[in-house]
Amino acid sequence: MKKVAVIMGSDSDLPVVQGAISKLREFGVEVEAHVMSAHRTPEQAAAFSKNARENGFGVIIAAAGKAAHLAGVLAAHTTLPVIGIPIKSSTLDGLDALLATVQMPSGIPVATVAIDGAENAAILAVQMLSLSEPALAEKLDAMKRSMEEKVLAKDAALAEKLA
Amino acid sequence: MKKVAVIMGSDSDLPVVQGAISKLREFGVEVEAHVMSAHRTPEQAAAFSKNARENGFGVIIAAAGKAAHLAGVLAAHTTLPVIGIPIKSSTLDGLDALLATVQMPSGIPVATVAIDGAENAAILAVQMLSLSEPALAEKLDAMKRSMEEKVLAKDAALAEKLA
Amino acid sequence: MKKVAVIMGSDSDLPVVQGAISKLREFGVEVEAHVMSAHRTPEQAAAFSKNARENGFGVIIAAAGKAAHLAGVLAAHTTLPVIGIPIKSSTLDGLDALLATVQMPSGIPVATVAIDGAENAAILAVQMLSLSEPALAEKLDAMKRSMEEKVLAKDAALAEKLA
Amino acid sequence: MKKVAVIMGSDSDLPVVQGAISKLREFGVEVEAHVMSAHRTPEQAAAFSKNARENGFGVIIAAAGKAAHLAGVLAAHTTLPVIGIPIKSSTLDGLDALLATVQMPSGIPVATVAIDGAENAAILAVQMLSLSEPALAEKLDAMKRSMEEKVLAKDAALAEKLA
Amino acid sequence: MKKVAVIMGSDSDLPVVQGAISKLREFGVEVEAHVMSAHRTPEQAAAFSKNARENGFGVIIAAAGKAAHLAGVLAAHTTLPVIGIPIKSSTLDGLDALLATVQMPSGIPVATVAIDGAENAAILAVQMLSLSEPALAEKLDAMKRSMEEKVLAKDAALAEKLA
Amino acid sequence: MKKVAVIMGSDSDLPVVQGAISKLREFGVEVEAHVMSAHRTPEQAAAFSKNARENGFGVIIAAAGKAAHLAGVLAAHTTLPVIGIPIKSSTLDGLDALLATVQMPSGIPVATVAIDGAENAAILAVQMLSLSEPALAEKLDAMKRSMEEKVLAKDAALAEKLA
Amino acid sequence: MKKVAVIMGSDSDLPVVQGAISKLREFGVEVEAHVMSAHRTPEQAAAFSKNARENGFGVIIAAAGKAAHLAGVLAAHTTLPVIGIPIKSSTLDGLDALLATVQMPSGIPVATVAIDGAENAAILAVQMLSLSEPALAEKLDAMKRSMEEKVLAKDAALAEKLA
Amino acid sequence: MKKVAVIMGSDSDLPVVQGAISKLREFGVEVEAHVMSAHRTPEQAAAFSKNARENGFGVIIAAAGKAAHLAGVLAAHTTLPVIGIPIKSSTLDGLDALLATVQMPSGIPVATVAIDGAENAAILAVQMLSLSEPALAEKLDAMKRSMEEKVLAKDAALAEKLA
Repeated sequence: MKKVAVIMGSDSDLPVVQGAISKLREFGVEVEAHVMSAHRTPEQAAAFSKNARENGFGVIIAAAGKAAHLAGVLAAHTTLPVIGIPIKSSTLDGLDALLATVQMPSGIPVATVAIDGAENAAILAVQMLSLSEPALAEKLDAMKRSMEEKVLAKDAALAEKLA
Repeated sequence: MKKVAVIMGSDSDLPVVQGAISKLREFGVEVEAHVMSAHRTPEQAAAFSKNARENGFGVIIAAAGKAAHLAGVLAAHTTLPVIGIPIKSSTLDGLDALLATVQMPSGIPVATVAIDGAENAAILAVQMLSLSEPALAEKLDAMKRSMEEKVLAKDAALAEKLA
Repeated sequence: MKKVAVIMGSDSDLPVVQGAISKLREFGVEVEAHVMSAHRTPEQAAAFSKNARENGFGVIIAAAGKAAHLAGVLAAHTTLPVIGIPIKSSTLDGLDALLATVQMPSGIPVATVAIDGAENAAILAVQMLSLSEPALAEKLDAMKRSMEEKVLAKDAALAEKLA
Repeated sequence: MKKVAVIMGSDSDLPVVQGAISKLREFGVEVEAHVMSAHRTPEQAAAFSKNARENGFGVIIAAAGKAAHLAGVLAAHTTLPVIGIPIKSSTLDGLDALLATVQMPSGIPVATVAIDGAENAAILAVQMLSLSEPALAEKLDAMKRSMEEKVLAKDAALAEKLA
Repeated sequence: MKKVAVIMGSDSDLPVVQGAISKLREFGVEVEAHVMSAHRTPEQAAAFSKNARENGFGVIIAAAGKAAHLAGVLAAHTTLPVIGIPIKSSTLDGLDALLATVQMPSGIPVATVAIDGAENAAILAVQMLSLSEPALAEKLDAMKRSMEEKVLAKDAALAEKLA
Repeated sequence: MKKVAVIMGSDSDLPVVQGAISKLREFGVEVEAHVMSAHRTPEQAAAFSKNARENGFGVIIAAAGKAAHLAGVLAAHTTLPVIGIPIKSSTLDGLDALLATVQMPSGIPVATVAIDGAENAAILAVQMLSLSEPALAEKLDAMKRSMEEKVLAKDAALAEKLA
Repeated sequence: MKKVAVIMGSDSDLPVVQGAISKLREFGVEVEAHVMSAHRTPEQAAAFSKNARENGFGVIIAAAGKAAHLAGVLAAHTTLPVIGIPIKSSTLDGLDALLATVQMPSGIPVATVAIDGAENAAILAVQMLSLSEPALAEKLDAMKRSMEEKVLAKDAALAEKLA
Repeated sequence: MKKVAVIMGSDSDLPVVQGAISKLREFGVEVEAHVMSAHRTPEQAAAFSKNARENGFGVIIAAAGKAAHLAGVLAAHTTLPVIGIPIKSSTLDGLDALLATVQMPSGIPVATVAIDGAENAAILAVQMLSLSEPALAEKLDAMKRSMEEKVLAKDAALAEKLA
């Protein structure tokens, strides 16, 4: 099965990005995580991305804040799908990272998830891998059922609470 | 090879969405396009999505404007990756559709591209399919080289123009 | 008298939504509260909404954050008035939920109140019910007078405080 | 059957507001339309609102642009439900009118619809009236079915167009 | 000398508004402060405003948050200058109150100051009164010189601190 | 009677600013209009403002777009009230000019009106002058009555139109 | 004297960027203009930037729209000052390009000018070069005087026009 | 070597601005820091700026919040490059300061860095000085290598942490 790369622009993003790493491992997907910067280590980032497909990766997840160029810069060097997680920083409530991640020019898409949406980035990566991995599709189905059951349980708990 | 579904919330979105359909066909991907509404035909939308995987689809692209719920509603009923195209409408310059598409709650991701970014939605879908279709990966590489060549040609033309 | 349904997308919304439940009970309106998700339990949500009128409901109140689709999804399945409460979450200060709730396409309105405006959602529901329940109209009048008196009392208290 | 008042802050809003008047008449609801200003004719607005319930109105729809105070000012003087239509004007794309209409303080709700969403304001008013008018509920059902059929027809037309 | 009225929409605004009251008193201007609501006590607000000029007021300052209609509603009933202070509340960082205060339609201006800018509202009121009160103009000059001296002193302190 | 200065940052602002000049003349107020730039002619702007009070001015109106510093720079050099008109330019729909005009630091207020709100700037200036000019107060009352009559006439016309 | 590079992300940006090229030539600065893309020709962009200082450039100006990564990507590969021009595109009025250009992480600044502010980018580059080129400083002084004279002439023209 | 001036609008900005002062000193650049206000000490600010070039300064850095006019006002009086740091204050998350700093009219650029981006302002100033100071260019290169090494070290640490 193909691996997923999780790249963060700064190790200060780890508390958010950890959610993606954990979720991927829950699905039994092999993860390789890196700190790489579009601006401080542009060559390492380019090299990693350029070789990602032949190194066995199927998806690259990139998390960055502020003028978040990381996902776009990685997408410039690969034809693998790149998922971008905009990270909220100390000003503008994540709007800067969201726009800098999602508004990519024609030809170089970045699959953007919600601000700080690390868990969803992982699930999206699993959905992509599931196209050729029926076992992952089954695990996604199980997760969907489990989410449904949790909501139903919370609904039941609410009924009791308010009674 | 798996098919791609292109769903638009209204046929008035076709001028933008046509860009996705054409691009997918350029890559030789089979497309099925529909007008379906999260609010006006919710049952058809749910049924389509629920059966999409077993009907041979690999990716669902959904385009909608304003309070753009379509991509999220489709994502609720499938474990296939769903790509959302926020459509700019007559007010708020597409910001409403962008936020309503991208800010999905945990568990149900939507892979969001730029406002009116139909072509990128198609390329992203092809990237996803390319994980198990080496021929598509080669075509993506060719497209990347072609984009590069076009920029180089424009750069040369600019040099002449300004000389 | 018709009942009011109060649906929240997540039980984490309860601290805000409780304000609606309490206010409805103050007016003697029967409330039924549920946790239901547009994305995690879409079928339960659709079924609830589809049967709400014949099950004795007059109004549905729906509270959700981020890409808040819940009110719109419920409105897709009923002709009862649906009131949407956009919930502020950890990013964007509620603007995402507001736009995702209020910017509904033509044909499927959602009566949107202020971000986190749970109490107003309840009062609006009571106003709707009051069209055929004169007793509620009288209670609303009394509430209006009471609000007026509280402001007058605060004005008097201010005069003393600043004297 | 109760009447619906449609109040616009300026006669320049009529091209948008006409959509509400026409839609209400389609449903056979009696409409009374007025130009009234929260700022230029505050007393007429207050008097109209104060007497609306006893004058046979069931809902007030108010449309205004910029610092749109009209809906809120009318809501201050009645316990009828008040629906606000934020009107887009020459700057800020309707965001000013949206926030000035929807962000009402506790105690005085305004049921806000989308920017320039006149048709939805009418449908919402009909939904409110339908609580005590079964004939309106049936017409709303018919409208829902008709919307569904139109989408299905457009979907069929699209299939032909793209074939 | 004419008095200044300071009206706040809620007594919870007092911590901010106190800055205006104190500053006016520093200038020796007589202040009358009230809690009055555009929505909860609209008649008192209208009456106060309508009689303000003949009751010896020269300026009305109005502070309100969210869909801040108070300043506009007071301005509807007087030809005195009305100064609006948009108050930041729990969502949207004061942008709602700013737009609802400043974007007044033609004919009914509100002199808007910064979000939470109570002190500036007071100074602006004093500037208005100073047109016919030379003593106030002199006090404003003195304040300007004092502000300048404070900055110069801070600049000197900084030089020491960084040396 | 005191004069009003109308300063615009660029002569391209004249089509908007003309509304202020005309309105002031309607009230019989003497106007002196200038093109002056906070950035291109800072010394002329400072000198004008510094001497404005002794040169017989009572109010300064300043109109500027983009990073609109003009009103604030004039306010730095006078204790007269300064009214700012944010001008909409080719990007950001006037939001930049609004924030750059209204968000003044403590000590130096600018009385801000709506984006492109030239007419309201003039009326606000007249309101300020009316504090010591009873004739202007009467003219403002007349204008208020005239606005009311125009709305009533439009309301009557609407009734006919829709009948 | 050092040269200035003007890099645009797409030749569709030329109508705006031409303003920078022309202004630099007015100052007698040697310009080299290129179409280069952060995403389509990332290697050419990196190589150009990496060698810019030793190839005789003193400043790099980069213009791009949407998720404008170009200036940041160039800045990653050089220690020359990089000036970013955010370009307004078909949605969001340039806000996306502004935030993606200006909100750079610590260590890699981009000197950002106004949206579509090509002329100012050129002037800023000349200001930088003027630190070691007294002749440019004199030309900047002359431009400043000329701007001042033009404003004074427009002011005089206005006086005549309004007389 | 030329000096750099660091001007802050208020001494409350020092905690942010200190980052610029420290970084400049790390590079061995002589810094002169001042508290100066565009509005409270406009003449000192103008005089400082007017004489800055002949007093041996090469760059002026200006930091201000809210309606941040300081950088623009300094730029009006000099042909030196002026760098603006928008400071986040208690409302609007720094957006007001960003727009008031960056959206300068043609002819008077301000080189704007990120909100609270003091360190980058310093680096940008050093980049400008490096055009005629090869030693600074070398130090910038060293800083770039050091940043790269730190990222590589963090990447290695992450690998261990997650192993």
